[in-house]
Formats: sequence, structure tokens, C-alpha cells
Amino acid sequence: MYNKFFFKKRNKVFVQDIYKALKIKKKITENYIINDIKDLSLAEEQDISFLHSSKYKDLACNSKCKTIITLEKFSKLLPKEKNLVIVDNVLLNLAKVVSFFYPDSLNDNFDDKCSKPNKKKYKYVKFGKNVLVGKNVKIGKKSFIGHNTIIESNVVIGNNCNIGSNVILKKTVIGDNVTILDGAVIGKKGYGFYPHEKKNIRYPHIGVVVIGDNVEIGCNNTIDRGSISNTTIGNNTFLDNQVHIAHNIRIGKNCIITAQVGFAGSSVIGDRVSIGGQAGISGHLKIGNNVQIGGGSGVIKNIPDNTKVMGYPAKDIRSFLKENR
Amino acid sequence: MYNKFFFKKRNKVFVQDIYKALKIKKKITENYIINDIKDLSLAEEQDISFLHSSKYKDLACNSKCKTIITLEKFSKLLPKEKNLVIVDNVLLNLAKVVSFFYPDSLNDNFDDKCSKPNKKKYKYVKFGKNVLVGKNVKIGKKSFIGHNTIIESNVVIGNNCNIGSNVILKKTVIGDNVTILDGAVIGKKGYGFYPHEKKNIRYPHIGVVVIGDNVEIGCNNTIDRGSISNTTIGNNTFLDNQVHIAHNIRIGKNCIITAQVGFAGSSVIGDRVSIGGQAGISGHLKIGNNVQIGGGSGVIKNIPDNTKVMGYPAKDIRSFLKENR
Amino acid sequence: MYNKFFFKKRNKVFVQDIYKALKIKKKITENYIINDIKDLSLAEEQDISFLHSSKYKDLACNSKCKTIITLEKFSKLLPKEKNLVIVDNVLLNLAKVVSFFYPDSLNDNFDDKCSKPNKKKYKYVKFGKNVLVGKNVKIGKKSFIGHNTIIESNVVIGNNCNIGSNVILKKTVIGDNVTILDGAVIGKKGYGFYPHEKKNIRYPHIGVVVIGDNVEIGCNNTIDRGSISNTTIGNNTFLDNQVHIAHNIRIGKNCIITAQVGFAGSSVIGDRVSIGGQAGISGHLKIGNNVQIGGGSGVIKNIPDNTKVMGYPAKDIRSFLKENR
Repeated sequence: MYNKFFFKKRNKVFVQDIYKALKIKKKITENYIINDIKDLSLAEEQDISFLHSSKYKDLACNSKCKTIITLEKFSKLLPKEKNLVIVDNVLLNLAKVVSFFYPDSLNDNFDDKCSKPNKKKYKYVKFGKNVLVGKNVKIGKKSFIGHNTIIESNVVIGNNCNIGSNVILKKTVIGDNVTILDGAVIGKKGYGFYPHEKKNIRYPHIGVVVIGDNVEIGCNNTIDRGSISNTTIGNNTFLDNQVHIAHNIRIGKNCIITAQVGFAGSSVIGDRVSIGGQAGISGHLKIGNNVQIGGGSGVIKNIPDNTKVMGYPAKDIRSFLKENR
Repeated sequence: MYNKFFFKKRNKVFVQDIYKALKIKKKITENYIINDIKDLSLAEEQDISFLHSSKYKDLACNSKCKTIITLEKFSKLLPKEKNLVIVDNVLLNLAKVVSFFYPDSLNDNFDDKCSKPNKKKYKYVKFGKNVLVGKNVKIGKKSFIGHNTIIESNVVIGNNCNIGSNVILKKTVIGDNVTILDGAVIGKKGYGFYPHEKKNIRYPHIGVVVIGDNVEIGCNNTIDRGSISNTTIGNNTFLDNQVHIAHNIRIGKNCIITAQVGFAGSSVIGDRVSIGGQAGISGHLKIGNNVQIGGGSGVIKNIPDNTKVMGYPAKDIRSFLKENR
Repeated sequence: MYNKFFFKKRNKVFVQDIYKALKIKKKITENYIINDIKDLSLAEEQDISFLHSSKYKDLACNSKCKTIITLEKFSKLLPKEKNLVIVDNVLLNLAKVVSFFYPDSLNDNFDDKCSKPNKKKYKYVKFGKNVLVGKNVKIGKKSFIGHNTIIESNVVIGNNCNIGSNVILKKTVIGDNVTILDGAVIGKKGYGFYPHEKKNIRYPHIGVVVIGDNVEIGCNNTIDRGSISNTTIGNNTFLDNQVHIAHNIRIGKNCIITAQVGFAGSSVIGDRVSIGGQAGISGHLKIGNNVQIGGGSGVIKNIPDNTKVMGYPAKDIRSFLKENR
């Protein structure tokens, strides 16, 4: 987890503090420290996590996490040793807990720590004109940073990277030999909020964007950082222009993602997946390894390994071609 | 109507001047002043308007407007008290009348009045580096303007707004508590022109973009200003990344518009409408309140209130799902 | 061919040098000079070209080109007087030959020759703030270049052009009376590479982007330059916002390309073609003259002249509308 580099975390949080933050009145038999808020797959015993859909019941049962925010109706599904924080709206209360742990996490203003790069600090980096660099930015050797590019505080860029012009990087960790083309915007908060009639309530986004080695990211791409976990792009995956990647998406290695493809939040894409232009992948799906998705497809179901699909909604490519002869 | 802030208007225009500008020879029995050019729904008696499709016949009959540019064949459909300016191509002649009223309206060059913001004038605004601000720009208190952002002359931004980096704003009026994310381009002329073999003829665009309170606009969005009327986005509507909004679109309150959605010109979208990623909405449609449009849909018909649709072309979502089981 | 302005070419290349570069051991009976590498339709006798698919067999047979890189299995299809360079992977070896002729062609870093424009050199041009211009850039009279725009070395811009703000132009030749709107990125390398498990191998892109007279290009468009031949946009063609054009696309005259349309590589589009919003055109297709493609369509086959299509996959529009009544 890289988020400790990017977000200030409150320390010494006790479970009682959580109840207070959520305005829940409850007699506490046992008060103990909560280290952090994480999703069910990453949470350790001392963390707090959440269950908002029965779809993730097994994950919750098998999670090491002791303290789980959930609905009354899910309490029967979970082992008795879990300490359940019962609320009437999981995601809304999750947002409150995240804001409690990370008080600055809702602030997504531009980084006012950015200024001209110190050439002594970055003596093995080649900068274009008008580049802006924040505090504690790390950039590896032989990397190029194009004109007008903005690299916000705490971003990490590896060796031999080639960042284009007019790029914006925030809350992002980038490997070696990565190319990021002109106009890409990486690491802004995801499109996650709780709709409210008067004024929508924004979820805090404490995940970051993690980009592997040898990745290429196309022009004018938008890659949002994760809400609780990270948005990740595996080694040697290439993205074409105008691709949109929402929060929490995890893309594997050696994928080929063609222009104007869009991913809704929280899907997991395997290795060696190729996706044709303008295809769309719905949220919370699992796309297997070696999957091929035809251009323009709309994927609304999980896809097993080694499958070729096409269509809207996407189906086996042979059926699609037969029906459309 | 905000366009008087952004476009210089010719004064003391008489109906005879209009005939001259259109090179129409006609004996005029009554010469009178025309105040402005507006669409049928907004025009007052002393304005001039236009009818180019029988679809808008009722609007024309009920309009207060006395002077209407139209085709010979529509003259029978309209009340006798209207003064009809008969032409052989309504939109082409409309363009001429707009250019006559607003001589600068075809100029869409960059704003050469932009320069570094005067910190005394904007003492309650926090600016990033390399920001450019035009003449007569108004920015409310506690607003943030990110690095490299360009705010052209006469733009109005409310209080507590958070404008990202690399944003371009022109001919736009923005409410309070609005977030505009990095790389958005708002207020350029719409994609409206009269095709011509040698050189297409551009329609002037004298509408502006009006953005309500509590709105969020995603990265790399493009929102075009209106041609005659405005492009508007209602209070508390949130747009995800890479959304495209063409000229004259009117979006209601509390809408949720997901990534890569596109709107062709002049459609009207109700309140509390949610639209899934990559859906497209054709031009000149009416989408009711509380409508839900599935991701990837192609909407080519009006949609009544409280309806869920999906598909290409979009149909009732139950039919779509049944057919695609 | 404009690429000699943009890419340094190696001179005095003999066919033997090609074999060496490809590590092919072969007794050479006749050594001769190879001038350049071109595609089959453009190559002259003294050039080298390539045949990687039997689809282009006729083109190869009729090409003036003497020296052709191809597979063993295609050798029977070609006339005996051709000198065939037999390889086991045409595109991979083509990449090597291109890199041999054009040693800098894989470098797509930002142009470090860019600096503030010399106002004496460009005395008939109006520049915005923070514009960056490379070496040997030509800009015609009465052209406007918006704020923060980057024009890399050797780019040519005609008279009366109107380039917006935040635009990036590289390896591009632009005619007269051209409008390029804010945020467009034109001329970067295309999305062409040879997938490799450890690290994909990038194809060099030595083609450029050639834009005709009276063209308009929308906001945030991405137009990639060609790999071997050019990407071209014909006179008086208008592109709306967020359009993506891949490498080697050739678009004719008087076309109307609406917002968010995407083209995969190497298709040829006729004159007077109109394409509705969000449509996608697959790679290597031929779209005739006067074709109309409905919004949201997915075109995966050639389309003859004077045809209206719609759907995914695109079919005759009457069939589409009948089936979807």
C-alpha cells in the first residue's frame, strides 16, 4: 500500500473513536486500536473493513479483519467472532470512517506545492519547459518530462521513463521504462459519491494509481485513483489514446487496450487480455486471462479465461458473428 | 440570457436592415425595431426567431415573437399576424442574421486579453502557476484555480469553486461549489455549420454555457456553448471523465452522467437522470425526469419520465435483458 | 512524402546492408542501392517494401518495387523478377528495416528544441502566452496560435489558420484556413507494436499527419501519424470533439465526423462521408464516397459508395431500422 506516502493518516484510533465518528451510541465491552481502513481482501485483524453486498459474503467470512461495517441483515451471514459496526448505509458510513482516518482525503484541489524543478536534485532527468514538480517527487535516471507537465507531490517515477507534454500526474507510482503520452491525466479522485438531493456527498479516495514496468499510456487518457484500494496497471500493458480507467480497476500484465475503451469501477482484468476500440467494461466484473474482447463490445458479465467475446452485450464471438452474418 | 456579457450586439436594428442583410427585396409596409435574435421559446414580440422544421410548428404558433424566418411551405401553418421572412434555407439565413446582430460571433480565436491574474483584484482566490485570466472575469471567494488554466474574458465563477489544472473556460457562467476537473474545455463554439462543397459555412454561436451550483465536471470533458440559446447544466449534476456535451444541450438537476457519454446537439434532459458509461444521446430529443439509461445505449427517441432503457437503439430495459439472456 | 522533413534518413543503403541489419545470411548475386522504405502503393523500383498478408498480393504484383520483405509462403504468389527478402515475421523485420533507415524514428520524446517563438521570424502570426515553437517551424500569414500551445520542430502551418490553446502539434503539415481546437494532440506515433512477453517491441512511425485546407479539428482530438505512409485529412473535412484517428488513416474531402468517433488504423475513407457520434471504424477498411454511417455504429466491413449504414455491426440502414422498430 502506497497511500501512506500521499495521505496523512490519523494515528491511535480506537474502535470507540469510530463509533463516535459515526454517531453510533453503543456500550463497548472491548476497546481496541484500529490501524487503518482497508478492503476485505487486504485488511489485517487490526484494520476495519466493510461489507455492503452479499456478493462479498465469502470474502468477509475469510477476511482476517475483525471489525466490519455492515448492514443488520448481513449480520447472520458473518462469523460471531467478527465485531460488526451496524449502520443503515454502508458506503455512506464508510466514507465517514475514511474521512476520519484521512482528514485531507476529500481535498482534491490542485497541488500548491508545485514549482519549477530543482535541476540539482534531478540531475539525471531531462525536463521540458514550464514543468511543475511538487514536494518529495522521485524521478529515476534517464527519464524525460515533457513541456507543461505537472507532477504533484510524492509522485514516484522510475528510470528510463518518457512522460509527454501537458500530462498531469497525482498520487501515482510509476515503474521503469514507462511511456505516458501527451495530455493524460492520472491519479485524480474517482467518480464515487453518494447522491443527495441538495448536494451529493463525495467519497474520499485514498487509493493511488500504481503503474508497472514497460507500460505505455496513450494521449488524453484518464486514469482515476482508487477509493479504498489502488488502481493498478500491470507490467508491459499498452493503452491507446482516450482510454478511461475508473477507480479500483486492476489490469494485469501484457494487456492491449485499444483507443476509447472505458472501464467502470472495481473490475479486475487478467493477463494478456486484448480489448478492441470503444469497448466498455461494466463495474465489479472479473475478466480472465487471455481474454479477447472485440471492438465496440459492452461487457456486463464476468468472462472466463481464454475466451473471445464480442457484442453488446458481449457474448461468445462465434455466436455474435453467426447471428450477424 | 447571459450572452450580452460575452458578445457585442448591434443596436437599433430595424426589420428593413434584416431584409437588406439577407439580400431580400421586399416592399415593407411597416418598419419596426428588432431587439435580438432568439429561439421560439425565448423570443419576445420585438425579437426575431426562426422555424426550420414543422416539428416546431406549435412552438412557433404560441411564440410571442412577431417576426419569424421560415420557408414558404410553412407559411400556411402560422397565424396571419406573424411577419414571415421567407427564405429558401432557414439555417443559412439564420446564420446571416446572427452575424448581423453579433458581428464578432464567428471569431473563436484564443482570447488575447488573457494575462496573469491581478492578485489584488482576486484576493480571495487561490491561483496555481501560469494561470491566464481575461478581462472582466469574476471569481467568487474561496475558489481555487489550478495550474496552466485559462479563463477567458467575461467568464463568471462562483464561490467555493475548485477549478483544476489545464482547464479552458470561455463564455461560461459557473455557480457556487462547482468542481471542474483537469483538462476540461468548456464554452467553445458548437459543431454547427452549413456544409458547402468549397468551404463549409460556420454558424455563429452566441449562446453560452451555464453551470449550476454543486456541479462536478470530469477530466477532459468538452462542453460546447449554445448556438442561439444556452447549453445548461443543472444544480448538483455530476459528470464523469471524457463526457462530450454538444451545443444547446439542457441537462436538469441531480443527474449522474458516467464516463465517455456523448450528447448530440439540442436535447433536453430532465432531473435525476442517470446515464451509464459510453451511452450516446441523439440530437433534438426529450429525456424525461428520473430516467435511467444503461451503459453503452444509443438513444434515438424521446424517453418518458420514470423509464429505464438500455440497448442500441435503446428500448425498455426488461425487453433488452429478456432478448439478451 | 513529407517525412524527409521530420526524420533523418540514412543514405547509401545497399541491399546487402538490409540483410546484415536483419541478420540474414545469404549469398548476394547482385548488390544495389535501396533508396527508402515505402508501402507497396508508393514504392518505386529502388525502394524496399513489404507483403505481410495475401490480401495485398495484387498490390505487390503491380508494385514497381523490386525488393520486398515477405514470408516464404507468399513467394510463389509474386513475379520472379522481384527480389524477395524472406523472413519469418514480416512486421517485426519491417520495424528493423525502418529503424535502420531512420535511426531516430523510435524516439518520441518531447522536442527539446522548443522555445518561445521569435517574433521577428513570425511577424504575421499572432501568438498567445507561453507558446513553444521548435526549429524550422513554418507558419503562414494571419494565423493565430493559442496559449500554451506546443508546435514541435519542422511542423508546417498554412495561412489564416486558427490553432487553439493547449494544442500539441508534431510531425504535421497543415494547409490554409485550418481550425484546430483546444487540447487536440496531433502527430504522435501510432499504437503499433509487436507484442512480446517481456517487453513489447515498438514499430517506428515515419509517416506524418497531412491536413488539407479549410479543415476543422475538434477539442481533445487525437490524431496519430502514420507508420510507413501518412495519416491524411482531406480539404474541408470537419471533425467534432474527442475524435480519435489512428495511424495511416486517410480521410477524403468534405467529410463530417461527429464527436467521439474512433478509427482503427489504415482505413481509407472517401469524400463526403458523414459519420454520426460514437461510431467506430475497424482497421484496414475501405469506406466509399457519399457514405452515411449512423451514430454509434460499429463498421467492420468495407462499405460501397452512396450507402447508408447503421448498427453494430453496421448494416444497411433500412434493415437496421426495420429490425429495430
